[in-house]
Amino acid sequence: MALIVVKFGGTSVADVARIENAADKIVREVERGNQVAVIVSAMSGVTNQLVGYCDEVSQLYDTREYDVVVSSGEQITAGLMAMALQKRDVEARSWLGWQIPIRTDETHGKARIAEIDTTEISKRLKKGEVVVVPGFQGVSERNRISTLGRGGSDTSAVALAAALKADRCDIYTDVDGVYTTDPRIVPKARKLNRISFEEMIELASLGAKVLQTRSVEMAMKHHVPLQVLSSFEDHIGSDLPGTLIVEEDDIMEQELVSGIAYARDEAKVTLLKVPDTPGVAARIFEPLSEAAVNVDMIVQNISADGKATDMTFTVSRADLPKALETLGNLADLDDVDIIATEDVAKVSVVGVGMISHHGVASKMFATLAKKGINIQVISTSEIKISVLIAEEYTELAVRALHEAYGLES
Amino acid sequence: MALIVVKFGGTSVADVARIENAADKIVREVERGNQVAVIVSAMSGVTNQLVGYCDEVSQLYDTREYDVVVSSGEQITAGLMAMALQKRDVEARSWLGWQIPIRTDETHGKARIAEIDTTEISKRLKKGEVVVVPGFQGVSERNRISTLGRGGSDTSAVALAAALKADRCDIYTDVDGVYTTDPRIVPKARKLNRISFEEMIELASLGAKVLQTRSVEMAMKHHVPLQVLSSFEDHIGSDLPGTLIVEEDDIMEQELVSGIAYARDEAKVTLLKVPDTPGVAARIFEPLSEAAVNVDMIVQNISADGKATDMTFTVSRADLPKALETLGNLADLDDVDIIATEDVAKVSVVGVGMISHHGVASKMFATLAKKGINIQVISTSEIKISVLIAEEYTELAVRALHEAYGLES
Repeated sequence: MALIVVKFGGTSVADVARIENAADKIVREVERGNQVAVIVSAMSGVTNQLVGYCDEVSQLYDTREYDVVVSSGEQITAGLMAMALQKRDVEARSWLGWQIPIRTDETHGKARIAEIDTTEISKRLKKGEVVVVPGFQGVSERNRISTLGRGGSDTSAVALAAALKADRCDIYTDVDGVYTTDPRIVPKARKLNRISFEEMIELASLGAKVLQTRSVEMAMKHHVPLQVLSSFEDHIGSDLPGTLIVEEDDIMEQELVSGIAYARDEAKVTLLKVPDTPGVAARIFEPLSEAAVNVDMIVQNISADGKATDMTFTVSRADLPKALETLGNLADLDDVDIIATEDVAKVSVVGVGMISHHGVASKMFATLAKKGINIQVISTSEIKISVLIAEEYTELAVRALHEAYGLES
Repeated sequence: MALIVVKFGGTSVADVARIENAADKIVREVERGNQVAVIVSAMSGVTNQLVGYCDEVSQLYDTREYDVVVSSGEQITAGLMAMALQKRDVEARSWLGWQIPIRTDETHGKARIAEIDTTEISKRLKKGEVVVVPGFQGVSERNRISTLGRGGSDTSAVALAAALKADRCDIYTDVDGVYTTDPRIVPKARKLNRISFEEMIELASLGAKVLQTRSVEMAMKHHVPLQVLSSFEDHIGSDLPGTLIVEEDDIMEQELVSGIAYARDEAKVTLLKVPDTPGVAARIFEPLSEAAVNVDMIVQNISADGKATDMTFTVSRADLPKALETLGNLADLDDVDIIATEDVAKVSVVGVGMISHHGVASKMFATLAKKGINIQVISTSEIKISVLIAEEYTELAVRALHEAYGLES
């Protein structure tokens, strides 16, 4: 008997028929004698609709009220899933974030889970009851609904698995695993049977939409065995059919490059002729951080005259209005031209094998150069190299790189 | 300065534009120096969609999970309304049922409000903050979301007004007041400037959809001045333009009949040859009551042989499956034929003046007879006479009665 947390994404619960299909999988896990906690996303399209309402009221909405609105999507699915399980004669009950409670900090719209009180739900699981929890939501210290940011249901699942010390966390989604790149762009992309947490984090943070970055980080930290699998195939998680995300040491054959990722939800901000005074970078990026804007790639050039410098960085497109508003209020930037564009994409090469090999970066630059693609910004880590390019070249770059590193199946 | 509770129905918050329009009315009340608590319904269509999902999963769904699903509709509107008010530089905050809390009993799907803790929201109102509360929802003793039944947002509004000792409760809806009958059936129907609580209760319980019955009962009990007005006209509640619902004594000229109401959401159940043993009625209706099925009209005939009797009663159509399931489990009815039909409508004549006048009932029966409409069941109270007829005659009956009692404008 194992304790399993299973998570169903938006397309896996897109309508009642799919919720019923997901319920069937849960029943099969229960029939094998497993204790099951379920995390559900909103039915696909619902969150976008709710976010759309908020944007329609105001671009600068209060995130506390945003959380009240958007958290309802998962709440709906949780109730329906509990009903679908009950119809199958499985004891089930929904538990909202404030009922468990799943305590978070006060960063509404992007909250972080502080603590999950498992007292009551553990009792229910031991009695054989299936516990259904809406993903993406928690409750803040001030007793208001908080949400974890887009894709937060993955984080909910891993956090719950860690809190319950679950044997496994199965993420059911609309793809059957993690691929070397997006199969919609490269039809020959290959499914990976295993991938390390580190690589998965890079792939996730770089736009491979299979898992939310934070969820993989959390799984790595808490040693939660994580599995990605399709809810549209006839197997269940206990049969181990998808992509297993494991510790680096558990991967037998290390490949040089595991995959090519891309992200279109980037925006580029360039500050022209920033006064080159000590601490100016801190005075720019600290307020952005306080405004909860995640800054990704940063490039700064030393200017010819030593008096002013140009600075470029990227933020997520959703954060761009807030970033520009924050920058507009900075005294340091009073005479600085701020240029922003959403017309960019980030393309990345990821692989643990990179650490011990040379030439990965130069092959990337040469491949892009050969296709006439200009590199705007470069950013590297031990296991990935990312470049910012004009958005229109995204597919071309991904295909060229996938072929250059020999990732085809 | 007055403390006002305003409630906006589903069509008044049907989309973001209408939410903004409602927010404008609230702002005008605030600008007059009034403290305002707002109750919002779900955007029109949303509750039906959510109930549809539940029905699709199972006709016999768990009402605790039903409440989790359907309560989200009002939650969404509450968050959006708070945003819309904030955009207008009015301090506003949403307060969900469990946050206030609005305590109810455990009758999920049809819960009754037990207590509203106004400590925190009173503090906010005194500070000039607008308090936005989703209607229709509360929290049960076991800390689960409960809902008050369809139309429950009116009850939420009146209960909140009573708890806050509000000076007035304004119900904004898609009609500009209470009419002598449905203007869609009788174009000459006349708007009533004032109506007594008692008449409004009968009209509401008989299908006039302007206000939920329970809300009017509660307003009468707690002496909450109630006002029905249109959210689509340019006035606000403080200008008193709709229909005022008041104590009977406050109505100057008493009319014989105030209005003609009808209800199509009735179902008729007939039990043929029920054993005529002592207590059989109790053994039939107690289980229905325990199953939270509201039985309305009841007729029982004494049978010729004294051994068996026929019994007819009506329930709301929504309750019919539950009623039939309950009856099917009763040992007393093992050999009884149960005939159910949804093909009926209830038409009623309502008026406080009826108490002191004769001939109201006979005029009703004569009017229907002249049109060839068969009366299936009759039920009377001090201020109303209701008859059950075949549904297809509804409009004809309403028009004939409206004319017979001289209610045209």
